[in-house]
Amino acid sequence: MNIEQLRADTPAVAQLIHFNNAGAALMPTPVIETMTRHIQLEASLGGYEAAAARSTEVDNVYGAIARLINAQPDEIAVIENATRAWDMAFYSLPLQPGDVVLTSTTEYAGNYIPYLQLKQQRGIEIRVIANDEHGQVSLSALKEMLDDDRVALISLPVIATNGGPVQPIEQIGALARAAGVLFLLDACQGVGQMPIDVQKIGCHMLAATSRKYLRGPRGAGFLYVERALCQSLEPAFLDLHAASLQTADTFNIRPDARRFENWECNVAAKLGLGAAVEYALAQGIEPIWLRIQHLAQYLRQRLADIPGVTLRDLGAVKSGIVTFTHRDSSALQVQQWLAAQGKRINVSTSTFRSTLLDMQHRDLLAVSRASLHAYNTEAEIDVMIAALRQRP
Amino acid sequence: MNIEQLRADTPAVAQLIHFNNAGAALMPTPVIETMTRHIQLEASLGGYEAAAARSTEVDNVYGAIARLINAQPDEIAVIENATRAWDMAFYSLPLQPGDVVLTSTTEYAGNYIPYLQLKQQRGIEIRVIANDEHGQVSLSALKEMLDDDRVALISLPVIATNGGPVQPIEQIGALARAAGVLFLLDACQGVGQMPIDVQKIGCHMLAATSRKYLRGPRGAGFLYVERALCQSLEPAFLDLHAASLQTADTFNIRPDARRFENWECNVAAKLGLGAAVEYALAQGIEPIWLRIQHLAQYLRQRLADIPGVTLRDLGAVKSGIVTFTHRDSSALQVQQWLAAQGKRINVSTSTFRSTLLDMQHRDLLAVSRASLHAYNTEAEIDVMIAALRQRP
Repeated sequence: MNIEQLRADTPAVAQLIHFNNAGAALMPTPVIETMTRHIQLEASLGGYEAAAARSTEVDNVYGAIARLINAQPDEIAVIENATRAWDMAFYSLPLQPGDVVLTSTTEYAGNYIPYLQLKQQRGIEIRVIANDEHGQVSLSALKEMLDDDRVALISLPVIATNGGPVQPIEQIGALARAAGVLFLLDACQGVGQMPIDVQKIGCHMLAATSRKYLRGPRGAGFLYVERALCQSLEPAFLDLHAASLQTADTFNIRPDARRFENWECNVAAKLGLGAAVEYALAQGIEPIWLRIQHLAQYLRQRLADIPGVTLRDLGAVKSGIVTFTHRDSSALQVQQWLAAQGKRINVSTSTFRSTLLDMQHRDLLAVSRASLHAYNTEAEIDVMIAALRQRP
Repeated sequence: MNIEQLRADTPAVAQLIHFNNAGAALMPTPVIETMTRHIQLEASLGGYEAAAARSTEVDNVYGAIARLINAQPDEIAVIENATRAWDMAFYSLPLQPGDVVLTSTTEYAGNYIPYLQLKQQRGIEIRVIANDEHGQVSLSALKEMLDDDRVALISLPVIATNGGPVQPIEQIGALARAAGVLFLLDACQGVGQMPIDVQKIGCHMLAATSRKYLRGPRGAGFLYVERALCQSLEPAFLDLHAASLQTADTFNIRPDARRFENWECNVAAKLGLGAAVEYALAQGIEPIWLRIQHLAQYLRQRLADIPGVTLRDLGAVKSGIVTFTHRDSSALQVQQWLAAQGKRINVSTSTFRSTLLDMQHRDLLAVSRASLHAYNTEAEIDVMIAALRQRP
């Protein structure tokens, strides 16, 4: 990888050290330019007229996302964000009373609350898969749980927002397929960071965001729905883009995954998402993933040397999200201290509110989260380590 | 109104004549600048860090919208677009089998399809209110329909996307209140064009978009939900912004209207929406409305003089959306002809797909739509009229 070029495409690295890529990564110049150019086009032509003038580019966004995850363009919906993308999959499932949803201890509260809502509303049951000795989903426990034919869905994140293991998603997918159970993968922290191949994973649905490791804009995300499933899944919400009115009494839902979209979108953000995907593909996801793992490993080693710091990452395979606690400082104090350095260092704080099961299980209230991307460097890590060592 | 200043704030008017304000209006410079400035801030600070740095401004967006429609800030949710804003209200209503939804002939297909979906899924009934002699909702017909205590909801647009009357929303709201029936108003074509006062209207819920007469960005909208109703309405979708996880089995939904939002948003578009609302308020909605009506009346008079042109607008009160058909040209041909002029003229085509009931009722397949805003001028209208007269 050409790190100098990566950094030249990310001018802010001259002013700050950005280790909040799991929150929102710094967008590279081509993404910024794509968006601001389109906003200017809207200002000079009109919003609809600008979209019409860029219809090929808008359409190409689907192809780019499909290439990124090894899907077909008609299996992709571009949605306002990953939450609503995930919602459109989950809330559209015909879950019945007694149906069981399996999830992981690493589940995000934003997904877990919808499970509880459907538990209240429809009487579904939630079961949490036990972890193995690495702190990741136990495949033998999962296999056993799948013996119950009330299990209708496996739904979990590939990587938790508070770090945690990279879940063995290909093995989970294989078990789901073998059991004839739907598998909804939350790939928010996965896409752009690591290879995500829906054919290899075998997931039926996958939701992801633009703003994290893909380095795209905020307010954009996408949903993959396997073609064979798509037409049998009636979207929870419909409009005249997802469906068309035939008579005053009948409507047809479109056959492709865009049935989960709606008519209106922020076209600049959609094009920005496309530019971010193209940018990631041009770098190569495999080299990005290797570099992120290398940097994260380096950061973990350096953190381990600091008295009072405890690393909090689990998993046989770890990601670019590095979490830790400090004996003498709260996570918020660590974040503020690092942000106050001469060269500002952005890390974030992940609290039990986002991942209640995991944090309760580990008796943690909050962790500091430094999430690294390929454009980061060892030198930046050294600066952060020095700042932590100087903490008063 | 200072029309010169309005046009100076809209530089594209030097290059084109934009009569597609009901699709997406030209954004004024303060809106463009607000958005591009925030995108640059995200590029230089990080997406979350930029939002934190502008948290006061983000919060002020709610206050601005509240002032625009005479609501309280805690009654406002800022949502990805008007469709999803409307969806979050409609699909969250606890409609039961046999419940009746009343709508107008002018209803938008994007709303009508959801009625049909819940007719199929839950057995609700849809009834269309008859029109009076002006082609607008007949208040006496509505009053009679409200005698049936199965009526649970009145839901209709203040102004249809294909023109049509400005519905007598204050009288409709009074009838709804008197009958104890919920009133959901689609104000997409209303906000920014005409005074919309939720206290005077008495609607319980109102959905609106940014990109039309408000002159804000695409991919932004808002929902108003009356405070007294808000807490009893469980959102159809939840996440960890709308609710918080208390234990592995319990969650709390936040009390204000932001329960209809989700965590992630396009912050640049949200700030752009706020800037658009502030801009409209600074001009004054009343003068904007008077000028739009004046220009639309002038356009209708000029169109009426062209042989072969038939005006298609109904209603005792008409809006800035002017619709017509041409004896010798399809609506698409009219649109293309005007777009091909030396100074490009943007009009749009509204087909039966968007407003099936109304168009079927009037035996129309498509109409040409010229939608005027306060920054338009009589001179621009004269150019369009001359172009239409020269049509080969």
